[in-house]
Amino acid sequence: MKEDIVRHFHDERERLNEVVMARADREMKRFWNLDSAVYRDGELPSATKELLGLVASLVLRCDDCVRYHLSRCHELGVTGEQVVEALDVGLVVGGSITIPHVRHAMEFWAALDSR
Amino acid sequence: MKEDIVRHFHDERERLNEVVMARADREMKRFWNLDSAVYRDGELPSATKELLGLVASLVLRCDDCVRYHLSRCHELGVTGEQVVEALDVGLVVGGSITIPHVRHAMEFWAALDSR
Amino acid sequence: MKEDIVRHFHDERERLNEVVMARADREMKRFWNLDSAVYRDGELPSATKELLGLVASLVLRCDDCVRYHLSRCHELGVTGEQVVEALDVGLVVGGSITIPHVRHAMEFWAALDSR
Amino acid sequence: MKEDIVRHFHDERERLNEVVMARADREMKRFWNLDSAVYRDGELPSATKELLGLVASLVLRCDDCVRYHLSRCHELGVTGEQVVEALDVGLVVGGSITIPHVRHAMEFWAALDSR
Amino acid sequence: MKEDIVRHFHDERERLNEVVMARADREMKRFWNLDSAVYRDGELPSATKELLGLVASLVLRCDDCVRYHLSRCHELGVTGEQVVEALDVGLVVGGSITIPHVRHAMEFWAALDSR
Amino acid sequence: MKEDIVRHFHDERERLNEVVMARADREMKRFWNLDSAVYRDGELPSATKELLGLVASLVLRCDDCVRYHLSRCHELGVTGEQVVEALDVGLVVGGSITIPHVRHAMEFWAALDSR
Repeated sequence: MKEDIVRHFHDERERLNEVVMARADREMKRFWNLDSAVYRDGELPSATKELLGLVASLVLRCDDCVRYHLSRCHELGVTGEQVVEALDVGLVVGGSITIPHVRHAMEFWAALDSR
Repeated sequence: MKEDIVRHFHDERERLNEVVMARADREMKRFWNLDSAVYRDGELPSATKELLGLVASLVLRCDDCVRYHLSRCHELGVTGEQVVEALDVGLVVGGSITIPHVRHAMEFWAALDSR
Repeated sequence: MKEDIVRHFHDERERLNEVVMARADREMKRFWNLDSAVYRDGELPSATKELLGLVASLVLRCDDCVRYHLSRCHELGVTGEQVVEALDVGLVVGGSITIPHVRHAMEFWAALDSR
Repeated sequence: MKEDIVRHFHDERERLNEVVMARADREMKRFWNLDSAVYRDGELPSATKELLGLVASLVLRCDDCVRYHLSRCHELGVTGEQVVEALDVGLVVGGSITIPHVRHAMEFWAALDSR
Repeated sequence: MKEDIVRHFHDERERLNEVVMARADREMKRFWNLDSAVYRDGELPSATKELLGLVASLVLRCDDCVRYHLSRCHELGVTGEQVVEALDVGLVVGGSITIPHVRHAMEFWAALDSR
Repeated sequence: MKEDIVRHFHDERERLNEVVMARADREMKRFWNLDSAVYRDGELPSATKELLGLVASLVLRCDDCVRYHLSRCHELGVTGEQVVEALDVGLVVGGSITIPHVRHAMEFWAALDSR
């Protein structure tokens, strides 16, 4: 069951990106490219940048974005304990309104871990 | 399949509006009325106002509101290319956190177009 | 049917809280505890504080949080008319972008009432 | 000194409301009227509604709006201890990002108290 | 006096853009460029796009951004009545929490008009 | 001149914290303590956590909070290039609405550097 939420997330994301790209104009594509560029290794390693994206997504309360950055963190070897500490920062900055998203984040991370 | 998300959206909206109106007091009804009034033709045409509502809904990240304004834009003859340019403004103002909503908007517009 | 959305809400909340607590660290638990503490009877009665939590959740547009505070208000004897007046404040402060959440709130309250 | 921030707040608010009303159309005036209506005594007393407006304003992080509702609470006899408990709810719901606004709220309340 | 808030806005904006560009990396510059691109004439005229930027800025409650788009609207021949109607949409979508920003917008527009 | 914005920031912060603590109840003090706890060295180093706080503050658009985390980053030896990359993530996630805050962040960092 748990693996399903991971696969479903990736399939839906891919399907909808195709819907977007079928009609996107040049500006929309430029934004998509820039959105990849800022997470690449630089003065800060990519894993740290994904944690930044994770916490930004948590405080802005976007489950989809949280899941994407959790996937990337998992691929890059970030540990569960590190993720919890990053979520703590987001929870304290963003308040209890983020709790439903913390719940979904913890469930998604458990699913990533159990694959 | 694609038509379903349009019909489902309208049915659910109508059903829930009835739930609200069964218990709404005078102030709630006044808000509902004012919410219609600001999109009527005036110094700005209704289509422009619906685009304003669309972009406001995108940057505030409300899929339901985005779908409503997309429906109205479609009825009023706004083109797909114009909608994409309006979404570009919302995407740049609101950032990548709006991307999941841009995806849903593009999917909903495609469904409106294929009816 | 209506009771289902209440039971489903509580079951899902309980299930996910267990997922969180299985991995939460000390800081996360401290936040969870503080989140309970601020709604206890004090200089303001608990019912008033739950209404504060309700309106805060509405303007921040979190359905899950709105449902939780509606449940608590219902347990504490807040009337439907009082809830509508509180939602009016949230609707006017937060604008039409809160309307989808007002709809869900009214539906959930009706479900609580019909149990 | 402390009284200055109260007087300055009210003078500036009055001055700018005149600027708005000189050019406002019918819809803008209807919104202004509705914004007064929802805080009147009803099933919930006006003081409770002002506390709702206060917490909504805190979590949405608007110093001006916080100050307005603090003024109204003060006029209606809400105590300092009650205001602190209401701010606690807003602080926990909205997170540490509200702290600068909690600071300004506490300073403004102290100024109201020392008049 | 009124002209001062316009000149001050532009001077401060220019001064701070220089501070940013002195240290910006490639990604930051790409974002700045994209931020100009989306307001250019296309399927929608530039004036409409500036109104979209205005309303997006109002509902996200950024005075600086509102002022920038008001300046651009003024240059492009948008009328005061059209601006008021656009602000109405933002006010209804974003709620009374936008009122302080509506006030500043109306004051800034009056200053633009009186130059 | 540049040093002034740093000193002014710290003096004002200290002054207002005293105003708060003079009237804060137990819950408010618990929140303040928890807000310190989540940035301490753990599985993630304190510098990374301050960068998380910085980006969370940027996307939620709180100048005061951004300045606080910039100060802490500076103390902990984070470089200017690393700060720019972190701001890039916030800018792309949060969109052009964060630009005024990016400007203030870059100005504040320059002031920290020139002390």
